[in-house]
Amino acid sequence: MQRILSSQLTAHVHETVTIAGWIHRRRLLKSVAFLIVRDAEGLSQVVVAVPETRAQLEEPTFVEESVVEVTATVTPNEQAPGGVELTAPKIRVLATAAALPFELHRPAIGATLPTQLDHAALALRHPARREALRISAAVVAGFRAGLTEQRFVEIQTPKIVASATESGANVFTLDYFGRPAYLAQSPQFYKQLMVGVFERVFEVGPVFRAEPSDTARHLAQYTSLDAEMGFVSDHRDVMAALTRTLAAMTAFLDRPIVPSEIPAVHFTEALRIAGAPADEPDLAPAHERALGEWARREHGSDFVYVTGYPMRKRPFYTHPDPARPEYSNGFDLLFRGLEIVTGGQRLHRYEDYVEALARAGEPLEPYAGYLDGFRYGMPPHGGWAIGLERFVARLTETANVREVTAFPRDLHRVIP
Amino acid sequence: MQRILSSQLTAHVHETVTIAGWIHRRRLLKSVAFLIVRDAEGLSQVVVAVPETRAQLEEPTFVEESVVEVTATVTPNEQAPGGVELTAPKIRVLATAAALPFELHRPAIGATLPTQLDHAALALRHPARREALRISAAVVAGFRAGLTEQRFVEIQTPKIVASATESGANVFTLDYFGRPAYLAQSPQFYKQLMVGVFERVFEVGPVFRAEPSDTARHLAQYTSLDAEMGFVSDHRDVMAALTRTLAAMTAFLDRPIVPSEIPAVHFTEALRIAGAPADEPDLAPAHERALGEWARREHGSDFVYVTGYPMRKRPFYTHPDPARPEYSNGFDLLFRGLEIVTGGQRLHRYEDYVEALARAGEPLEPYAGYLDGFRYGMPPHGGWAIGLERFVARLTETANVREVTAFPRDLHRVIP
Repeated sequence: MQRILSSQLTAHVHETVTIAGWIHRRRLLKSVAFLIVRDAEGLSQVVVAVPETRAQLEEPTFVEESVVEVTATVTPNEQAPGGVELTAPKIRVLATAAALPFELHRPAIGATLPTQLDHAALALRHPARREALRISAAVVAGFRAGLTEQRFVEIQTPKIVASATESGANVFTLDYFGRPAYLAQSPQFYKQLMVGVFERVFEVGPVFRAEPSDTARHLAQYTSLDAEMGFVSDHRDVMAALTRTLAAMTAFLDRPIVPSEIPAVHFTEALRIAGAPADEPDLAPAHERALGEWARREHGSDFVYVTGYPMRKRPFYTHPDPARPEYSNGFDLLFRGLEIVTGGQRLHRYEDYVEALARAGEPLEPYAGYLDGFRYGMPPHGGWAIGLERFVARLTETANVREVTAFPRDLHRVIP
Repeated sequence: MQRILSSQLTAHVHETVTIAGWIHRRRLLKSVAFLIVRDAEGLSQVVVAVPETRAQLEEPTFVEESVVEVTATVTPNEQAPGGVELTAPKIRVLATAAALPFELHRPAIGATLPTQLDHAALALRHPARREALRISAAVVAGFRAGLTEQRFVEIQTPKIVASATESGANVFTLDYFGRPAYLAQSPQFYKQLMVGVFERVFEVGPVFRAEPSDTARHLAQYTSLDAEMGFVSDHRDVMAALTRTLAAMTAFLDRPIVPSEIPAVHFTEALRIAGAPADEPDLAPAHERALGEWARREHGSDFVYVTGYPMRKRPFYTHPDPARPEYSNGFDLLFRGLEIVTGGQRLHRYEDYVEALARAGEPLEPYAGYLDGFRYGMPPHGGWAIGLERFVARLTETANVREVTAFPRDLHRVIP
């Protein structure tokens, strides 16, 4: 198909060209009719003055979202988008749309989120929804670029596992050739084991949480941006690599939002800043918001690290702080007052895993297959996981993660 | 941790440096002892002449695969790897390895594939296994680069679906909040629907096949390199984009292996070349091998397209050849005599889907959620799916796809 894109029209003034796309809007005025055609790059204005073509436009095939091919002359017009419009068109319909459940040409979709999700393939065509997914693609590309530059190697790991990796709760069970198996809640142990192979690894992939939470920030499947690195002194090496990666993830923005050094506060200090009692075991959402405001006010930063979470609130593979073993070398990263990254230094000695499981009162057996790899020499290491959808929602100031996910999965939704 | 990598040693001759890595080999000769230390970049030779350090090396913690940190002087030695070795070392053990089930310092691992897979985290450290995964990462990076350059946008789609996308067979069933759901066998309909949003999309992600086939080329989970593009004339536009993408996927090789135009033969011609009866409905592995030999002999090409497969052997969403409707606008790509890509033009009109399902004797209902999107105007489009592991196995001339997969899943294996 010999077509040019809307963005290329200005290079073809006074020429006859062919464009193709969706009818974004049809406007039948008294003396003239307009067709706004949408393609991957933007909008083109097609002007119809000839009665025969106008009659064609009044047919039911010319509804919005029908796909058309338009051959016409590129004519300058200062009022038109991009300064050009298409005149004297010949129009061919490639596919006719049915009646739409909602319109796409207004600034926002005038339908509830559930209705949009029921017709996700249509709703995602709206420029605002589409833009969020483009940003998501740019964030993922930046994640990979930032890590590749730091010598991380990309890996692919199993999503079907024999036992739950995150202490058993909230896993999906499946029938694996007649045996029970589970959907991976994270690539946690796999990425750790791959530190033994490449020292530094990353993975972009789906993870699955059978959480019955029906909130604006929970999904049953989300995209996890995972990284893990060996030969670290402690969690601070991990935070430095993450900060650099975040800068790459947001490099497409007009202005940088990641400071060269992100402020970091110890958990005990975080409680004090948030005005929480000193014996709180974790940060509540209100505390996270208070810390976000503090970081903005005191450091002009959208980001703040909270380090040294109490060991009893972190998973068993977390490395303790050698100086204060009741606190961990684990951290969270808050972005505009919301936790979007969890990371830290991990245990690296097999015997430390055995001991940690015993202390947690958990059996070794379900983990035996993963932990075997730790018997053969693993360096001190750590890493992190970023929830892509939460990150993009925060970046675009979108209230619900479902609005920045192509076909979200939750407690109620498995279609489309 | 202040360390340098093995590859950086030559820039530090006569200096004292710290390296860290795994004991790849320990050699205790009469007068001198050697430690070969492996890191992400290669091997370093550490020479031990002093009796105290030698005594340390004879301790059981200094077994192969223990993790060590070595501070020593970089000394030129033409016989050593890279022309330098480390002398007068101080060695610190970071983690002690248990007795190994097989050795890693020989050219090939002296253990059966099942034993290697039982200890995958260890086996993958072997330079040959590690290299295959590095190639895999390079292939995936090239896939994305080649498509990004052609205006494709990356997407993430659901891996949990309400109904099977590929005609029902061989799907894994899971318990989705009390209802049955399935693991996606491909992102087929999702990538097609996203053509309505971005025109051109790609996805790198896991797909799941509950095939009871226990062969060297089947996996229960593999990585699918998917792409889909709109506004095509027919399958040949898709093949042109794929050829360009394959060149990018193999750009890291020393010599190019993808011709600027890959030879293409129609299915009927392919049967003749392979010496198969004219009424064969599909190509058998022996036919594929014969075609691979033919492409190499006649065109000097490792690749050959077979176009126009009979409609009855292609999925219902395949677009027929308008000139010969019993043949399809679907194609396969053979690489060195093995099918590694399936692609083609798809149906794009909703009513064509309804008709195709009726003709195939399949109910519409399981597909209704996906097909809804086709009601709202979809352009002519097509795409392809590449099996990453098969591609890498063929590229590296590896017999079994399990050897180029980090933690393979098959009929018998779900651990580690």
